[in-house]
Amino acid sequence: MLQQIEHIAIVVQDLEAALHVYRDVLGLPLVRIEEVPAESVKVAFLELPRGGSHIELVQPTDTESGIARFLSKRGEGVHHICFRVENVAEAMSRLLSAGLELIGQEVRVNREGRSYIFVHPKSTHGVLIELYEVKSS
Amino acid sequence: MLQQIEHIAIVVQDLEAALHVYRDVLGLPLVRIEEVPAESVKVAFLELPRGGSHIELVQPTDTESGIARFLSKRGEGVHHICFRVENVAEAMSRLLSAGLELIGQEVRVNREGRSYIFVHPKSTHGVLIELYEVKSS
Repeated sequence: MLQQIEHIAIVVQDLEAALHVYRDVLGLPLVRIEEVPAESVKVAFLELPRGGSHIELVQPTDTESGIARFLSKRGEGVHHICFRVENVAEAMSRLLSAGLELIGQEVRVNREGRSYIFVHPKSTHGVLIELYEVKSS
Repeated sequence: MLQQIEHIAIVVQDLEAALHVYRDVLGLPLVRIEEVPAESVKVAFLELPRGGSHIELVQPTDTESGIARFLSKRGEGVHHICFRVENVAEAMSRLLSAGLELIGQEVRVNREGRSYIFVHPKSTHGVLIELYEVKSS
């Protein structure tokens, strides 16, 4: 079902400071920086040269959002792991049949029209997992 | 410098229970299960079908090891992210020049003869990062 690691999202306090490490020292190419007011975050997208995976550095832009609360409770670090799947609706039905708990009851769709769901860390041994639909070409 | 996500290591309490989720429900092929007495862990290696990355589920086999202490302090979840690099010695020198802190002072070599280092999470915005040498073919 899981096809590929799409991205690893890392919550950081200061996007510029984190870019210094991940882009300038570790050498990951920066794809773009995006403000997402709906989620009160600023996100830097970096790309691994091989394997099709990305690193997303996520900085909260307020103190109330889910990301801001995560940061204040747990500190900087890995927020979630996103995997590509062929079909999110099928994946969701399989997860629910197996008794796993999702975050939210429905498949969500992002601004690019791609479907995704989040699986609750209590069902995945402590890892917040996103499943993201990308049809194989 | 970073080439590819080699693996994501997840600390779990009970390897069989975690395999039920990651292998049976999420559908990741199991490559092998290995006991590593030197580190007091049992590890299940699972493979993503695309992108060359792996998931390692790590269960402590005692209560004193680093992994056991991590589990008891932080609970189940992501332990570290491992990236492939072309040359660990060069990477190490670049990291030290930039003032990043490593865990240990020297390049380590695993049983397969591959070189690796760990970068301290305080230098990487909360993520324990392993750099693992794989020459590109």
